[in-house]
Amino acid sequence: MIVCLWVACFIPSTSAQPSANSSEASEIADSVQLRRLFDLALTQSSTYENLRELCQGIGPRLSGSAGAEQAVQWAEQKMRALGADSVWLQPVMVPHWVRGNTEQGQLHRPGKPVENLPICALGGSVGTPKGGIRAGVVEVFRLTDLAKLGREKIAGKIVLYNRPMEPILINTFEAYSGCVDQRASGAAEAAAYGAVGVLVRSMNLRMDDLPHTGTMSYRAGLDSIPAAAISTNAAAALSRALRDDPNLEVSLELSCRNFPDALSYNVIGQVTGSRLPDEIILVGGHLDSWDLGEGAHDDGAGCVQSMAVLEGYRQTGLQPERTVRCVLFMNEENGQKGAIEYARLSGERGEVHVAAIESDRGGFTPRGFSVDGVDGVRETALARLRDWIGLLAPYGIHFADFGGAGVDISHLKAQNVALFGFVPDSQRYFDYHHAANDRFDAVNKRELELGAATLTSLIYLIDEHGLLVRPSVPQNR
Amino acid sequence: MIVCLWVACFIPSTSAQPSANSSEASEIADSVQLRRLFDLALTQSSTYENLRELCQGIGPRLSGSAGAEQAVQWAEQKMRALGADSVWLQPVMVPHWVRGNTEQGQLHRPGKPVENLPICALGGSVGTPKGGIRAGVVEVFRLTDLAKLGREKIAGKIVLYNRPMEPILINTFEAYSGCVDQRASGAAEAAAYGAVGVLVRSMNLRMDDLPHTGTMSYRAGLDSIPAAAISTNAAAALSRALRDDPNLEVSLELSCRNFPDALSYNVIGQVTGSRLPDEIILVGGHLDSWDLGEGAHDDGAGCVQSMAVLEGYRQTGLQPERTVRCVLFMNEENGQKGAIEYARLSGERGEVHVAAIESDRGGFTPRGFSVDGVDGVRETALARLRDWIGLLAPYGIHFADFGGAGVDISHLKAQNVALFGFVPDSQRYFDYHHAANDRFDAVNKRELELGAATLTSLIYLIDEHGLLVRPSVPQNR
Repeated sequence: MIVCLWVACFIPSTSAQPSANSSEASEIADSVQLRRLFDLALTQSSTYENLRELCQGIGPRLSGSAGAEQAVQWAEQKMRALGADSVWLQPVMVPHWVRGNTEQGQLHRPGKPVENLPICALGGSVGTPKGGIRAGVVEVFRLTDLAKLGREKIAGKIVLYNRPMEPILINTFEAYSGCVDQRASGAAEAAAYGAVGVLVRSMNLRMDDLPHTGTMSYRAGLDSIPAAAISTNAAAALSRALRDDPNLEVSLELSCRNFPDALSYNVIGQVTGSRLPDEIILVGGHLDSWDLGEGAHDDGAGCVQSMAVLEGYRQTGLQPERTVRCVLFMNEENGQKGAIEYARLSGERGEVHVAAIESDRGGFTPRGFSVDGVDGVRETALARLRDWIGLLAPYGIHFADFGGAGVDISHLKAQNVALFGFVPDSQRYFDYHHAANDRFDAVNKRELELGAATLTSLIYLIDEHGLLVRPSVPQNR
Repeated sequence: MIVCLWVACFIPSTSAQPSANSSEASEIADSVQLRRLFDLALTQSSTYENLRELCQGIGPRLSGSAGAEQAVQWAEQKMRALGADSVWLQPVMVPHWVRGNTEQGQLHRPGKPVENLPICALGGSVGTPKGGIRAGVVEVFRLTDLAKLGREKIAGKIVLYNRPMEPILINTFEAYSGCVDQRASGAAEAAAYGAVGVLVRSMNLRMDDLPHTGTMSYRAGLDSIPAAAISTNAAAALSRALRDDPNLEVSLELSCRNFPDALSYNVIGQVTGSRLPDEIILVGGHLDSWDLGEGAHDDGAGCVQSMAVLEGYRQTGLQPERTVRCVLFMNEENGQKGAIEYARLSGERGEVHVAAIESDRGGFTPRGFSVDGVDGVRETALARLRDWIGLLAPYGIHFADFGGAGVDISHLKAQNVALFGFVPDSQRYFDYHHAANDRFDAVNKRELELGAATLTSLIYLIDEHGLLVRPSVPQNR
């Protein structure tokens, strides 16, 4: 059933192949529309003010928190105001982790004053007993280092994972991927060797004093030990201190804890298609954020950019042929429960998504899109994007290649959906990611607006021309 | 003589045309070298710390100031330390304008408290009499509006030039070009109609409270009237206030003044070519800056990136065949006297510049290069750049087109030099340009380093392969 409908969705709006002349005329019409979308985004859009409301009016919005609840209500109202003809909430149970008020790390060296360490609990971590823990420290760089050291050197210790992000990778997300195992499963792996806690070097390419949180998980059958991030500067300093004094100790007190799952919502609003309402073009980001900053780049930017697509249609007076649906997923940060539920219901209902586009790499200057999907879909989608990239070149858009498109929409991949990941410039993203400085003032208005117009432009092109199958591309049909 | 030598400089290093196989091998060798240059720039370069020294150690360095003098000495030493085999200073007389201690603008409305206006004198402006001036305000948007209003409405008034930068232009430098006439000649034009002073809306796309200075000049035979920039927020507020109360007044007190020209220097350092030492590849930025911030993006970034080219050659152990010359021009901001003197001496001595590359658009993520030159040279240079752009694509470089290459190197254009302007992302540049927030902390380390590696890469490619004439391109020879 799904596959059948999916084939239908690759039929272009106009049934006949356009002639050379009409194709040229269509390209001119497209370029005029794109110019209009960019002009509106840069002069009359509420995108930046929406981000201000979300970041400064509501603030952090971790799943299960009061902030997340407020954000759901805000987004529901905002989508209506921006022009969605229907808006609804999709209930989903989400993890509920709370940092609490106590969060302290200290360095103890004989004959030296105690030093405070800039640390923060990782999301999902258990707390320490009241009064904290105190132990010696063993430094490793890879998870596999644990086996080399063995239980003998690790048991009773705090493990410091200190592998830096690789600075020579131009795409900073690759550097992140190469490091994040330390944060995600460092505690579970270390617990297997009897460690009593872990400190993880922040996923940050910059040397500074901010700890960057993020999600982690434990392994069933093993102890759940406290896990905290430590700033890049402090990780480097602790490493040096360990060389001078291998017997130094670190104390750690964390009051964080996990509560039972809470009810929350994906927020969904759409402009229903005039001719092919059952074909959905999805655009989205995630509404939840970590609790330390204001979730500005991650992912307030993606939320307001996705909502800007609704506003773009309203302001231009364009009526999409297909349904343009904005989805603000709940709980991307620590469980993806919203995305999983959305995909489950979509499958159950036999919904047809022509394409899904995710913005979750920050509100920086747009560069292009990465493309994903099952075999055949992926190739088709990329070929189509490359057909259009020249139309986007005047706006600095040049990147079109295969690559991960975003974790929220990845759950739609098996439903044969063409997945597009919005790719802004990545150089500054990890300066702010999951840290206290991910605030509204870290987002540049023009960069944010250019991204919004880029998303709207791609959706316009997909709606206008369909995701045609190109004969030269292998298909799975 | 020059033309003759210039023809010679387009001969490639290898005299025979390479075969297909050797061309492929050469491309692989090039890509390995570029990877090495980027790796070094992102891991072992002193570029960011050099910028810190220049911005935080020395600070602002307007032509003729003590800061400029310190910067000259610093740059001379730094070039030696980075690997230049010869370094010298090129004397030049430069304007010497000083802001002084008094700088105040106030808004006076009957029945309302006096309001301070965020203003700053424009560079080159005369001061006001002690105690300042106070006058009514007339708002215009274009220089041509003055003629429409006529002397009757302008005489005795302060003219507010309030045309905003055009937000829909994606290249913010185009938006700047479309506005800067207000700042450059607004005072001269208004004086012709009897105005007593001008306020110019800051050249800034953002709405904020910072006044942005910049150069202006008077016209012989007309009164020199005081000229100040006003922040975008205050310009908009003053415009609204004028609608409510056309008789409001503004007072202005400026203590700035022009002093006799001062002796200063271009700072020049080079790695002398091993095989073709008389062919020069120039890379540069300008060492002077405005006096309000630290001259970080404008143009500390361009200076340390240009010096990083010397470091790149030292670190890789590469020996260029041609001479790679780093030139830090003095006085770009208010006279270009350094650039004019450099070009004059180059012409006089019959020096052959194969290419000149300027970095003066901020330390942001690199996007590519714009190309300029006289007819024939320009086309050849662009074609060559496009041959190489694929080698730079892994580093996010995609832009190669005609366009202004930079005002300092533009003086070499008539000497048939191929001119390349480094093009970083332009979205944030005018947030900082000539304002108090153009500080070291506004520059991202990675973005700066990527730019440095991009410059070094282009120079490597020019040196390795020459700027070949391509038969398909019209030539002037």
